[in-house]
Order: sequence, then structure tokens, then C-alpha cells
Amino acid sequence: MPPILYNLKELNPFLKKVKPSKILIVTSDILENKLKWAIQEISHTNVVVLPDGENAKEWVQIEKILKQFTKIGLDRKSIVIALGGGTVGDVVGFASAIYLRGVRYIQVPTTLLAQVDSAYGGKTGINFNGYKNQVGVFNNPLAIIVDIRFLNSLSNDQLTDGLGEIIKAGLIKDSSILSLLRKEGSHVFQKERILALLVKKSIAVKQFYIRKDPKEIYLRQILNVGHTVGHAIELKYKLSHGKAVLYGLLKELAVGESLGITSHTVKVNFLVILNKLNIKINNKYRTDLESLYHDKKIFHDSITMPIIEKEGKTKVVTIKLKDLRKLL
Amino acid sequence: MPPILYNLKELNPFLKKVKPSKILIVTSDILENKLKWAIQEISHTNVVVLPDGENAKEWVQIEKILKQFTKIGLDRKSIVIALGGGTVGDVVGFASAIYLRGVRYIQVPTTLLAQVDSAYGGKTGINFNGYKNQVGVFNNPLAIIVDIRFLNSLSNDQLTDGLGEIIKAGLIKDSSILSLLRKEGSHVFQKERILALLVKKSIAVKQFYIRKDPKEIYLRQILNVGHTVGHAIELKYKLSHGKAVLYGLLKELAVGESLGITSHTVKVNFLVILNKLNIKINNKYRTDLESLYHDKKIFHDSITMPIIEKEGKTKVVTIKLKDLRKLL
Repeated sequence: MPPILYNLKELNPFLKKVKPSKILIVTSDILENKLKWAIQEISHTNVVVLPDGENAKEWVQIEKILKQFTKIGLDRKSIVIALGGGTVGDVVGFASAIYLRGVRYIQVPTTLLAQVDSAYGGKTGINFNGYKNQVGVFNNPLAIIVDIRFLNSLSNDQLTDGLGEIIKAGLIKDSSILSLLRKEGSHVFQKERILALLVKKSIAVKQFYIRKDPKEIYLRQILNVGHTVGHAIELKYKLSHGKAVLYGLLKELAVGESLGITSHTVKVNFLVILNKLNIKINNKYRTDLESLYHDKKIFHDSITMPIIEKEGKTKVVTIKLKDLRKLL
Repeated sequence: MPPILYNLKELNPFLKKVKPSKILIVTSDILENKLKWAIQEISHTNVVVLPDGENAKEWVQIEKILKQFTKIGLDRKSIVIALGGGTVGDVVGFASAIYLRGVRYIQVPTTLLAQVDSAYGGKTGINFNGYKNQVGVFNNPLAIIVDIRFLNSLSNDQLTDGLGEIIKAGLIKDSSILSLLRKEGSHVFQKERILALLVKKSIAVKQFYIRKDPKEIYLRQILNVGHTVGHAIELKYKLSHGKAVLYGLLKELAVGESLGITSHTVKVNFLVILNKLNIKINNKYRTDLESLYHDKKIFHDSITMPIIEKEGKTKVVTIKLKDLRKLL
């Protein structure tokens, strides 16, 4: 498991020890301006800029970034730094994995979502032919830098986006996260100490499952709570990942209840937390099961998905797709 | 290390045990007709055809094959079978590695070169921006099927192509290969038993180094004898890989002699073998050191390359590029 450094200032001493031949920062169009302070703080030899948002996660963008790697003359002793949200991390992780059969990279997640979720576990990938993360590899970074300062400049939407995964971490494993959210409500965003604590707790949950099952053979699937339905609506309605997961959690809790697995209080408490955090979930989406057919967890006519039993406890079940269709 | 099965007839029982959801054969344009017997012998659900030769090793071809994977509906329980030479193996190995973050594949090498060399070690890749194997990953197949029947339909050029790597295996580790070649001369191609023995001995040499150093950190570099110069002329003069390696071996033996590392008899014996095998090496190529600058083994102003000491014994040395330039 790659080390996590909780301050950007630790990056330069870390790089000094690794002695890379070149250090390339890859970031996004908007972030290059917004995060000037961070780019200045990191020793580097080159900067490459990706288009903003999901547009970066396209096949043609990977070709472009690989051309830039070649032009800059990256070699096997170079290091690439992914400075940005999950998209930047996904693209850099994938491009680094396939350039010269692998150059090393470091994740510097700058959104709450990336800090608590996407930076861990080595999953990298791009969208392909309209399917999310259809192409990619497992490629762990050399290190992950989690600096709470990045969160200061995020919008409310971006913070909500991260909360989806934080709440999920509470639901599947560490219910103290849920207690903290119920107690603090929307004050969590004003209290840096509380936010830092939530981030660390959520990372610990994610790392627990990755350590047990690095290649997602079985147990790591528990991290997909809320994601079966979430992925089915995220691309369709162009939702943010966190919003889609929150909607997915709500729907999947209802499915779990219908199956007699999930206790009713879980959904009640989940709605209390959303209310306290001023998060509204739109109920109008139609889960398109057809789009699930390209889900990596579907085999024949069944899908394997995790279902919450009670706060902090989850199990993986296999459901016939036709039964899931009825329940949704 | 993936198992090696020495008969294509062993493939179906092997597949039966793995229980894949789909079995896709990928082969080349020409081979689809030429190897009808093999395609019929393998249980399969789909066949996909690549363009012939190095044209398949282009970025745009990977996009095409991934689209076909998606259209066919390959999932994580599917298996892809690479039926062809090194090019088919490289492309299938790479595409399988990045589709859904990895579907399993099986190598069925059909050329002598692929049977003794390219099918092992998990190196996959494509050419990019004019550089050979610039993009790829390490991705081991589930199994490798080596069937001597494929060699019956090869041209003399294709057999010579494989001999480059067979001679290399003799030079770096197993000198009994060289004795056998000196004894049998060009008769090796008529004697199936002898050819099968040479193939097995060469595979053993390759496997020895891969086992010791799967990621090519140090020792596996010995397998690159002849390849420093070989790669520098292969693309430039559009030579076959085997021919380029034979030329590379000759030049690198001379470099080794000049450095006082290689004993003179090695080159003398090497030329005797070429003569007995009726292989002529063109001496007109100019090794373009500039094209070496994108070699994965160059750092700063030096290159790390293996040099033969005597038949069956090799060491890795680091040479200044300017010294290498003088010696060539």
C-alpha cells in the first residue's frame, strides 16, 4: 500500500529521496490557475494541462498525454504528479501505467471526493464507447499526498460530492462517521479539525477493504455500496459522482429493505444526516438497468452487489437482474 | 510463471477447467485463412481479425480491438486467445490488460520467433510516435501453447527470424544450443525432433532470466544481447526482428571485443554457425545512435547493455554513449 503524506510540504523531501530524472506535474486547465500556490510548492521540471472534467477521460486524451510524455522525454526514472480530482488521477494513473510499460506517479488529490475515495486502491481508467471506466488498469501510485488546504477553495457542490463517499464509509464499516455527521451537521465544513478527522476515518475504511482484497475479487466489492444504481444514473443524467452515489445509496437501502436484509432504521438515519447537511436528493431519476449490462459485476442474468445490513455492517449478495428490476 | 502446454490439443481441456463466459480468438488477416485447422481445433465463441504485420501495433488498432471487445460483450470472466506471431501477442496482451482493467488471455505463438521468445515474460506493447514498444504493460498470459505443427508452414525468412533468438539463447546461457546448431546446420529445419529440442532449450533460457527478474530491473537485461544495436536499425531499415538481432549480435560482439570483455573465438564461432545455416548478414547498415535516445535503458549520457564474455556467459555493463559511438 502506498504511503499517505498528510501535508504537501512533505512531497519535496520525498522526491529528493527518490531522485527522479524528471518531475512532471499534470493538472487540469482550471486548476493550473487556481492552484498556482501548490504548483509553486512542488519541485518540478514540466507541467502538462488536461481539459477540465470528464472530457479528459477519453481515449484521444490518453494519446495526447502520451505524446507529451514522449516529447518531454520522460524515462523510466521520471515521476509524474497527478494534481487534481479523480479525473486527473484516473488519466495520469492510466497513462503512467502504459508509458514505457510503467513510469511512477504520485497522487495529489485536490477534491474531497478524491481525498477520501478515488486516490486509493490503484484503480485507473477512462470512459470508452459511452461506458464508464471501461478501459484502465490497476496501478498504485508511489505515494498519496492528502493536504486539507486544497478543500478551502471547493464549492458546496464539490464538498457534497465528497460527502457521498464519506457517508458510504460510515454505512459500510465505521458508524462513528455517521455519529459525527449527525452531531456536526453542515458545521463540518467550517471546522477544519472535524473535516480532517472525517477524511482520515474514511480513508481508513477504504484502505481496510483494499488491503484485504487489492484486485476486487470479493470483499472489496463492499466499497461499491450505492454504486450499482449510482453508476447506472451518473452518465445518463450527467450527475456528479457523489450525488449519484447518494441517490444510489437511498435506492439500494430500499432494495435491501425489500429483500429483508437492511434494517429500516438505516434509511431513516441516512435521511436525517442528509437533512442536517442540507443535501437534497432528487427522486425523479429512472434507473436504467440496460446500462447495467456493461457493469463489471454482471455475469449472465445476475448481478453481485453489496447490501447494508445495519450501520457499519454489509454483505455481498447475488441478485437476479429481473428481481432487481422489480425492486427498483 | 504461466504454464506451457506443448500441444494445441491440450487447450480445450484447459479452457473447460477455467469455464470462461466467452472465448474470443484474435488472429491476423492472413493467418485466419492459413490456420483454419487451428481455429477449428480451438473451442471458441468469436473470432476477431487484426491487420497483418506491424500495422497492428498502432494506437488506432488498439482502439478498434477494444471496440470489438465491447461489441462482443467480453466480461471479466471471458478469455481472449492470441493466435499468431509476436505482433498478435503484443496487441492482444496489451488490449486484454486494459479492457475492464484486465481480462485473461492465452498465447498461442505460431512463428518460431514468438515460440522461443516473444510469448514469454509478459511484455506487451505497441509502437507509438515512431518509437518501438513505447506504450504497453507487463501482462502475463494464463497459459502459453507451443505446438511445433505451426512451424511447418513458415517461410525460410520466418525461420531465420526465430534463429536469431535461438542463437542468442545459446550465446548468453546454454552453449549446448550452439553445439547443436554447429552439428546440424540447416538440417535443423528438416528434423522436427531437433527443432523441438532447440525450441525447448531456448524457452528454458528465457524463462530462467524472467523468473529471476520479472520486471527487468537488472538480470533480465541480459536477454537484450544484440538488441541495443538491433532495435536501432530494425525500424530504420524495416528489418525483421530476427535479422536485426543477428546483425546486432555481430556488432555487439565486436564492441565487446574492443572493450576487452568478449573473447575473439565467440565471434568466429558465431560466423561459423551463420555459415552452416546459410544465413547472410548484410554489413551495410549504419547504427543510428540518435534513435537509441528513446531506448528504455538510456539514462543521461550512458547506456546499460549486456555483453557476452564467452559462449554461455554474459555480464551487464554501463557504457558512455560517446564511447559506444566510437566503437560502432
